[in-house]
Parts: sequence; structure tokens; C-alpha cells
Amino acid sequence: MNRREFGSVLAGGLVSSSFARHRWLPARGQPPRVNGDRLNAHLTAISRFGANPQGGVTRLAYSDADKLGRDFVLGLMREARLEPSIDLAGNIVARRSGSDASLRPLLFGSHIDSVPEGGNYDGNVGSLAAIEVARTLAEQGITTRHPIQVVVWQNEEGGLYGSRAVSGQLTGNELTNVSRSGKTIADGIVFLGGDPTRIAEARRRKGEIAGYLELHIEQGGTLEREKLDIGIVEGIVGIKQWEVTVSGFANHAGTTPMDQRHDALLAAAKFVEAVNRIVRSVPGRQVGTVGRIQAYPGAPNVIPGQVVCTLELRDLDDAKIVTLYGRIETEARRIGEENGTSFAFKSLHENVSAPSDPRVRTLIAEASRELGLTTKVMPSGAGHDAQAMAQLGPMGMIFIPSIGGISHSPRELSRPADITNGANVLLATLLRMDEARFT
Amino acid sequence: MNRREFGSVLAGGLVSSSFARHRWLPARGQPPRVNGDRLNAHLTAISRFGANPQGGVTRLAYSDADKLGRDFVLGLMREARLEPSIDLAGNIVARRSGSDASLRPLLFGSHIDSVPEGGNYDGNVGSLAAIEVARTLAEQGITTRHPIQVVVWQNEEGGLYGSRAVSGQLTGNELTNVSRSGKTIADGIVFLGGDPTRIAEARRRKGEIAGYLELHIEQGGTLEREKLDIGIVEGIVGIKQWEVTVSGFANHAGTTPMDQRHDALLAAAKFVEAVNRIVRSVPGRQVGTVGRIQAYPGAPNVIPGQVVCTLELRDLDDAKIVTLYGRIETEARRIGEENGTSFAFKSLHENVSAPSDPRVRTLIAEASRELGLTTKVMPSGAGHDAQAMAQLGPMGMIFIPSIGGISHSPRELSRPADITNGANVLLATLLRMDEARFT
Repeated sequence: MNRREFGSVLAGGLVSSSFARHRWLPARGQPPRVNGDRLNAHLTAISRFGANPQGGVTRLAYSDADKLGRDFVLGLMREARLEPSIDLAGNIVARRSGSDASLRPLLFGSHIDSVPEGGNYDGNVGSLAAIEVARTLAEQGITTRHPIQVVVWQNEEGGLYGSRAVSGQLTGNELTNVSRSGKTIADGIVFLGGDPTRIAEARRRKGEIAGYLELHIEQGGTLEREKLDIGIVEGIVGIKQWEVTVSGFANHAGTTPMDQRHDALLAAAKFVEAVNRIVRSVPGRQVGTVGRIQAYPGAPNVIPGQVVCTLELRDLDDAKIVTLYGRIETEARRIGEENGTSFAFKSLHENVSAPSDPRVRTLIAEASRELGLTTKVMPSGAGHDAQAMAQLGPMGMIFIPSIGGISHSPRELSRPADITNGANVLLATLLRMDEARFT
Repeated sequence: MNRREFGSVLAGGLVSSSFARHRWLPARGQPPRVNGDRLNAHLTAISRFGANPQGGVTRLAYSDADKLGRDFVLGLMREARLEPSIDLAGNIVARRSGSDASLRPLLFGSHIDSVPEGGNYDGNVGSLAAIEVARTLAEQGITTRHPIQVVVWQNEEGGLYGSRAVSGQLTGNELTNVSRSGKTIADGIVFLGGDPTRIAEARRRKGEIAGYLELHIEQGGTLEREKLDIGIVEGIVGIKQWEVTVSGFANHAGTTPMDQRHDALLAAAKFVEAVNRIVRSVPGRQVGTVGRIQAYPGAPNVIPGQVVCTLELRDLDDAKIVTLYGRIETEARRIGEENGTSFAFKSLHENVSAPSDPRVRTLIAEASRELGLTTKVMPSGAGHDAQAMAQLGPMGMIFIPSIGGISHSPRELSRPADITNGANVLLATLLRMDEARFT
């Protein structure tokens, strides 16, 4: 197909509402569609790498299962007539040329590593759909203007290591962190075919990409509950995590009267309740969680003298996180005064929020509408490689429903039809970005 | 001294209020007293076995430090002209003959094993004071009517193993339990010189002992706070322990809205508060503690799907424990209904309460008054070997103050003068029991 037949239909964010004039329309006037059956078959096929007896997978980054899954992905990429390679950070990057040498590449992809006892959809859907999109382009003889790159990021679940290396957010001392596979990040990168000593060369600069798209399962229950097809991600929430230490005084649980205790766990319990109450006290979709807790010395017959727990707050608005944290800290101080205990907060981890590009959101909405799919604009409460890519260029994310909102579990499930829909929205959005000479 | 000069002054619980007529009064009319300086020097000496750099001791039962401490004790017993031996359960039992062959032995003693990073007083005070009492009798040429036995029980801290073997409460399958030293109970008993294959022969029957006395530090702050010298233990509280499992649903902390969560830790936090509130809602000295807690999977970014914690209730009145537990269980069910979680309780451990003998309490009060010491009748919130001995005969316990109520800690401390007072009350009470031909 000659691209001159079809001019750009998008200027300054204005998007065509008709497929009719698009340059990549095949002869019979139908926009291209992915092969949904093939995509779902590939998803079934990849689930054997690290399969758990009870269902789901444990495909920890840098494990043998991860390596085998990546080899499978490399094979699919070659079948899709892509040219895959491993970058210095260990990511798989598969290239396809575009027709306009002046344009930066459009990237799309996801990851295939999993949490321990994870599911078959988190990451896999986006990775295999990206390959399916590229294969569809190849099969239908569509040459994009932008070069395209299908990316499968390494070690997303451990902390977006592959994508953060590329966005320049990975610090050198993180390379010695030990991943859940038991390997250090550096050893893991070597294992995957990268070179941690040259990892800085994997970095790309702001503006080096024309855009980034990622399809992913929602990992929440909103779309399914509201019977919607597609989530248009307005941004990935900011995350702040703290380690909270409650200090009281350990004493004999038999001999210390109730009114003489400095019970760190009683104070921590009031703290857990306060976090829930404060986070829910203001309107919005912010969440707050205490996910880990341990009491010391930790015997049934000893009043806990110390409790260490975590606090995590997430919201699209980083300032709201700061406000909520301030209220929680004040309340913790008050709780401590009640029984002579004290609270100390240590920052563990911080991710600033990453808004998606409004133009991309419009194109996703447009593509969904053309496909007859219902949509909802929503935040991503989970972190994704897309948030690292948002540092480099315009980013968009497409969600499909997760049954029951279950994720990071063998019970994670997305319907084949939703997966096909998601892949078609990915394809259609990509073509719209390309059409618009997106930068 | 001829015992015929002094008749029994105690009949049917009536106790003489004067020392003047006691048969064991030395020529000059002064009741015998222990050598307090020597006793406190021995306490300092034993503290080197298992001494921690930061103070206190780690003298775990069946450890080398325990063995060395016991060898030290054996030496002190021989200096006190006792005849020590190791019984089949690994306890040290040191005998001294009495003059009346028709009387059963009076036992007194304690233990010398410690918790990890414990103090220098828990157990040691009672053990070394018992030896000092026996030495005082020998030095002052006092022959009791009852045979006496100074006992140093093995592995009190691990669960009253030595005394429960003797009272017949130890079950055979407990011998395979692994103690904190790393040895099984059976291997530990062999290590100490006992014979676990013949442990049943260490058992004594109800009525085989004339009585049991134990001096111990209070391990609570009541005596010190109220500036009292001696605690007269009215009984050792009953203890019930449960493992509590809260089941919710683990989910992604970023993607699961606050109102869609089945957070097991939020429910457990409300449970911890409820235990405290319910236990304090009725008058009395009952205590309730949640000492151990763990959330699963236990990651900062995962809503806990399960929490396992402990519940412990103690009171002198076993029926009150049952009542409080019923209220706690009902409240737990209500808490679970609030957020779709459920509570399951599994009994971990149960000790029925062990009242002391009222006649012995009267004699302790009498002895204390004669020594010019103030007293308070109080429960023992802690478990002691005395509770096992209460199964075999009349039991009495004497408490001395613990500074700040601190115990099971290197900061555990009792004043030398209080230790000497306690040993003198032990001696005087023993002589009164002997005088009364106690059975």
C-alpha cells in the first residue's frame, strides 16, 4: 500500500472518527485485525515455562523458566519477521523498519517474568499481543512510517529493572540487589545475555522514542464489575513506601498488668486501623496498605517490645500522598502517646506518578470506539514498565478486564475475547500514532 | 537441740505468732538467718555461665552454659553438705535426712536455665537461696523432722520439662520437641545425665511430698511499685494460648480499591484492639496478650490474605479465662463480618491454674512478719515449676521485688537485700512447715 494515498488525519490532537481514509486500510476497506486465536494459543503455550502444579506460573526473572520463556518469545518474534536482539540491560528488543527515516521509533511491549506463584496473564498478554500486532502488520504488508520496536522488558516484577535501565533511572548500586531467583541483578543480566558493566549504554534519552504503548491486564476488578471492555490509563500512580518501627517495651505477658504495658503491637494495631480510616476519609481512588508486619520478640507469652511493619500509599497525585502521609504520621504520634510507645518512619521506596499522554489517550478512545468497545478512563494502581518509558516520550496504556480483579495469583484470568480486543486496540492505536507522525 | 523441748505449735492451720517456743531456736534465742553476702556472691558467680557481653545470660537448657552452671550448683550443694544426684528426668535433687522417718520430704528449689538474653535472677535466686537455706541448717546444726530435698529443675523456661516429668504431666511425645538449644528434650536429658527411656521412673505420686516451696523474683512491678518486701503467691494463673488465623483475600495493593478489600491484617488489627479492650473491661488482674503476628504473603505491595497471630489469656480463675475467650471469639466473628474475613482459633497450650496451699500462705505471712517484712498476697502471672509440684502436695511461693518489673531481659534486677530477705523467709517458712509436721 502506498502511503501517499492517505494523508495524516491527525493534527494537533484532532483525531479522525472514520477508518475510511486511513492509509493502511487494505484493499477491501477493512482495518487490520490481529489473529486472536493465534494470540490466545501463544498465551497458552508460554504458560508451560515455570508452570506450577496448582496452576499459574512461577517464572521469576533470571530463572531457567524465565530464560526458556524468553527463548520462546524470540522464536515468536522471528516468526513475526522481527529482528530481535538482547540489549545491554538484558531486555529483548525486536525491530522492524519504518518508511520515514526522520521519525523516532514507536515502542510497545511488556514483560514475561512473574511473581512467585503468579498468573498467566500479567505481562504475558502485553508481550505476546505486541508480537501479534507486529506479525499482523507483516502479514498484511503494512509498513509503518515510524520504525517499530517490540520490547519485552526484563525483571518487571522485581522493580522495573529493565525499563528503568533504559530510562536512566536505575542506579549502579541496585545491580548488587539480590532478586527472588537468588541471583543478583548483575548476574541476572549476564544470564539473560546483557552486560551489566556496560548497562549505561542501554540508556535512551528523552525524545529518543516517538511513543510507548503497553497493553496489560487491569489487575483490579473495575472493568469486569462495570462490564467494560477497555481501560484507558490516565496515568500510573505514584507510590511511596515506608518501613514503620513501633517501639514499646517487651515484658512478661503474665506478670505485667494491662495498665502497665507499653505494647508495641497494640499501638501498631491502632496504626493499621488509622491508615485505613485516614486513606478512606477523603474522596478519590487513593489506596493505603500495611502489607507486612512482625512483632518482636514474637513469642505468645511476651508483650511485643517492637513491631516493624510497612506502609504504602498510592495515588495519581503525588501531593495527595504527601498530605495523607502527614495525617497518618500525626495520628501515629497520638497513638504512641496513649501507651508510651513511639513510631519511626523510614522511606523504603518511592515512584513518582507517571501520567499518560493525553493525545495517546484520545487515540486509544478513538480506536476502541471504532472497534465497538466500551471504555473507561482510569488510573493504574500498579506499577508498569510504561512509567519508566513515560520519562522518554509520550506513553499510553491499554487495560483489559481481569476476572474478579485477581492478579499475582494462579487464579488470575482474562477472557480470550478481551485479550483479542486489547490486541486490536493496541494495533489500531499504534497505527493512529504512526498515521499522526507521532513524536 | 532436743526436739522434745518444743512441741508442735501448729495444728489445723493455726500458727504460732512467736518464735520463742520454736525447737530450732539456737541457744541465744535468735532464729537462724542465711548468710546474705554469701548468697549474693554465689549469684554473681553463677552469672558467668552463659554471660552475654551486654549483660545478663543466655543459659539455654541443655547448652554447655547450662551444664557448667549445673556443675557449679552441684559444688555449692556439696559445700552445703547435701547429697546431690541427677534424677532420671535430668533434675538435680540434693537430699538431707530428717529425724522423723514417718514424714515425707519437704522440697524447695527453682531452676537455673534462662531464656535467650535473659537475666541473672529468674530461677537463680530461688535455686541458690534454697542451697543457702540448706547450708544454714547444716552450719547451725539444725536437723529437720522432714527429710529435705533441694531441687534444681531442668528446662523450666522451655516449658517446665523437669518438674512436669516428676509430676507426671509430661507426655512421651514431648520428648521429641526441639529445645532452643537445638537439642531435643530427650537428647537434652541425656546431656544432663538423665535417662529419657526411663523418665517415667522419675515420676512422683500425689502425697509423696510433704510440701514444696519456691522463692522467685516477681517478674512484675507490683512489689517495687508498692514498696513491699515479699509477695505471698496465692496461686499460679491458668494460661490458655491459641493460634489465631485470620483469612481474607490477598490482592494487589495498588489496584484493589479500599472498599473491595478483604484485608486480613485490618481485621487482625481490630482483633488485637478487641483483645485489649475486652480483657480490660472487667475488674480483676487477668491479662490478655497478642505476642506474635505475621501477615502473608507479607509484601509491602500486597494486601494480606492471611494473618496468623497468637492469643494468650491468664487468670487465677480458669472459668474467667473461658468467659473472656467467649467474648473475644464473638467479637472476632463480628470483626470478620465487617470486611469479609474469617477467624479460626486453634488451641496451642493450656495450663490450669495452680492455687497455693492456704496453710503455707499463712506460714509465709507469719515468717515475713517475724522478719519485719511487709507482704502482699498476689497471683503469679508467670508459670513456675511450683505449679507442677502443686499436683503432688501443698505448694507455696515467695516473691521478692523485681526492679521496674523487668524480667526475661539483661536488665532484670533484684536488690541484694531483697534476695537475702527472700531467702530468710524461705528458711523461716520451711522451718515452720517442718515444725508443723506438714503433710
